[in-house]
Amino acid sequence: MEGVNCDPHRPAHPGIFPAGECGQRDHRAAERSVDFPVSVVLPAAGTGERTGLHTPKQFCSFLGRPLISFTIQAFERVSWIQSIVVVVAKENMDLMTDIIQRFQHRKVRVVPGGSTRHRSICNGVLALGEQEEERLPADRPKVVIIHDAVRPFVEEDFLYKIAMAAKEHGAAGAIRPLVSTVIATTSEGYLDHSLERAKYRASEMPQGFTYDVIHQAYQRCTETDFEFGTECLHLALQYCGTNAKLIEGPPTLWKVTYKRDLAAAESIIKETLSRSACVVTGGSAQAVKLADALQKAAGALDLELDVIPDLTGDSGRYLLEEWNFIQVSVSRSCLSDVESILMDLEAANRALLHPLVVIWVHLSGSDELSISGTMPEPAAIMEMASAAKRRNVLLYGIQLHQSKDTERWERSVLRVAEITSALIRERSPALVGQLLQA
Amino acid sequence: MEGVNCDPHRPAHPGIFPAGECGQRDHRAAERSVDFPVSVVLPAAGTGERTGLHTPKQFCSFLGRPLISFTIQAFERVSWIQSIVVVVAKENMDLMTDIIQRFQHRKVRVVPGGSTRHRSICNGVLALGEQEEERLPADRPKVVIIHDAVRPFVEEDFLYKIAMAAKEHGAAGAIRPLVSTVIATTSEGYLDHSLERAKYRASEMPQGFTYDVIHQAYQRCTETDFEFGTECLHLALQYCGTNAKLIEGPPTLWKVTYKRDLAAAESIIKETLSRSACVVTGGSAQAVKLADALQKAAGALDLELDVIPDLTGDSGRYLLEEWNFIQVSVSRSCLSDVESILMDLEAANRALLHPLVVIWVHLSGSDELSISGTMPEPAAIMEMASAAKRRNVLLYGIQLHQSKDTERWERSVLRVAEITSALIRERSPALVGQLLQA
Repeated sequence: MEGVNCDPHRPAHPGIFPAGECGQRDHRAAERSVDFPVSVVLPAAGTGERTGLHTPKQFCSFLGRPLISFTIQAFERVSWIQSIVVVVAKENMDLMTDIIQRFQHRKVRVVPGGSTRHRSICNGVLALGEQEEERLPADRPKVVIIHDAVRPFVEEDFLYKIAMAAKEHGAAGAIRPLVSTVIATTSEGYLDHSLERAKYRASEMPQGFTYDVIHQAYQRCTETDFEFGTECLHLALQYCGTNAKLIEGPPTLWKVTYKRDLAAAESIIKETLSRSACVVTGGSAQAVKLADALQKAAGALDLELDVIPDLTGDSGRYLLEEWNFIQVSVSRSCLSDVESILMDLEAANRALLHPLVVIWVHLSGSDELSISGTMPEPAAIMEMASAAKRRNVLLYGIQLHQSKDTERWERSVLRVAEITSALIRERSPALVGQLLQA
Repeated sequence: MEGVNCDPHRPAHPGIFPAGECGQRDHRAAERSVDFPVSVVLPAAGTGERTGLHTPKQFCSFLGRPLISFTIQAFERVSWIQSIVVVVAKENMDLMTDIIQRFQHRKVRVVPGGSTRHRSICNGVLALGEQEEERLPADRPKVVIIHDAVRPFVEEDFLYKIAMAAKEHGAAGAIRPLVSTVIATTSEGYLDHSLERAKYRASEMPQGFTYDVIHQAYQRCTETDFEFGTECLHLALQYCGTNAKLIEGPPTLWKVTYKRDLAAAESIIKETLSRSACVVTGGSAQAVKLADALQKAAGALDLELDVIPDLTGDSGRYLLEEWNFIQVSVSRSCLSDVESILMDLEAANRALLHPLVVIWVHLSGSDELSISGTMPEPAAIMEMASAAKRRNVLLYGIQLHQSKDTERWERSVLRVAEITSALIRERSPALVGQLLQA
């Protein structure tokens, strides 16, 4: 979200969302025990007409990956969720199966949707009941969580609340305060009356039900419900006498509805991927000194840097988490250091879910801004970047010159930090392979 | 919105919003005659607690400019709107006055807000009544449009509808379909019932009133209304017996409410500024050939290019509209061409409202990727870019090499187009002055 700045007197600089708005890091801390089987139904058979796009929203891609894959991931990483049923329109069954294979999703089954939202959810619920016959060991779930494929930022903490409340009360649903006043209109299009905002809430997703309640609700409901209804909580009330427990959800539950929401979702995803980078120094004193200076400068830009000598031993864990990489090199022919990181990343299958950024920072000894001498061949890094891009890794280079003039040196380091931060946040495929000057 | 792609099988490429979602270009066509005086009240005294930011949303900056300035501009460009009263909290009066001066807004007056939304709007309405005494000639407006400072994308067409309906019916308001089901809760936090979605609408802004209706409504309403009410339409109904005409508004009426909306707003603003660039060739055959090839390649990237020899005569109009600029140079010491564009832009005060992008494309004659010889001094363009940035112009360079190998040449041209498109859309201040290789 470069350029958005909430103090009009400060120069524009990259902002960051607090954990509450995108918080994909929080799930590791939120592990709580759920001692009953929970499954998920994700209705994704909609046509997305509100965005005005040809492609349904759930299949729109962000950084090369469809939205629905992000939503599946949000459930997949929750250890106590045993299975996920994705309901898609018949014409998208193959596309969905491809997505599951390509992004190596587990726990997921795809079933065909019906002509309305309720028919699709019902298909998903029925599929959960059938699962016993297909897999061993598999329990019919105690609780079914229903969620929208286009609400990818749901967090484990909230799923936990919904699952527990659903088990206790039979049904539970997320609510949010109303953003606008709700008004009733006359048949001629005039104001009839406005509702008292404090008494009402917006009903959101996820919702949770015991399997018995949601199954019974769909067994008993009418064709009219299937055709025109939208609210599962309403069916549970009407056909099972279950008053759902309502739980105030965080803003992260928002739904990708309009085209502008695609931009917002992309921005949140980019922010989440752009919080941290790992600086690999190779251990040389000059490189370590530069890395330490960078670390300090990057902190002021909301970019967290860890400095390590190499990726062996315990540092191998950086390859398994959501880090970007900065290779600092001081010697002349040192693209081999970068090549080595690229190979490690490929071995760890790290660019499977989203592109990651590798920046090669080359420190040349010269005090002058000469472009000959220690500068590496631009063609070499461009070629390496083209190959890396095909493997979903975005490689950029930054060149800076050693200087004994302290002020000049500090300015160069600050510029490296600014360029690094911009490259990591913007993830521009068009700029890979460039050797930028700091 | 680079990276969002709605066909999962196509590589990521920059997308564009259709006119309906951001459409700031449409106002020129929408000119319609309104033969009665219309003024605007913009309540902007809120504290923006929902975004979780320290700065109220209306003062958050996008590309260096506060949101409220975009909203003011949306009204300022409508010829039939005679004045705009902005109501801000006392502690922000100076900030608001600075914004008006800095961005050279006209037609605007600032008045202090009250402790609630209704008190603030009332202050604005009363200020319109007082205007007669301060300025000549000034009419008490026939119609007052009330809008939110945080809905910057409102279009002239819709303002016209609201103004005409307000004059005819005494009051008029924008409505939108409900996105979520609205439910009533019991006092213990359980579902009581859900509303039938088709019968209700979300009440949005703008709203319009005849001056007499809104003035009378505020004269007659109670302290409780001032303290707890939110809906002006409700006051008009209750105290003047005026049933407002409700008009279905476009999605562009959305309100910047949550932090994610800042990203969406920024994306829409960037898209609006990134649709077109003007390629200045200087007239040489080689430059024209390159410009024509670029024009073709850029079209596929949703970037519209106009090719012109220079900015004199009739082409001076490009300086007055929302174009970015690409200077194509083939000779060796040709940064002077860029300098000339920068001076023209400054003379036209073109970077007042938002940063604009100038890209210098340098075509060198050599067939090899040598970095000596015809390449200009990187320090020179960096220096020029640093100076331009202080004047709100973002200058970048792209270097490409003439090649007789057709395939290689076409690849280079495509890369220039891709880099150009990325630079224009991303507007990264950190990358100014870089000389990129195509």
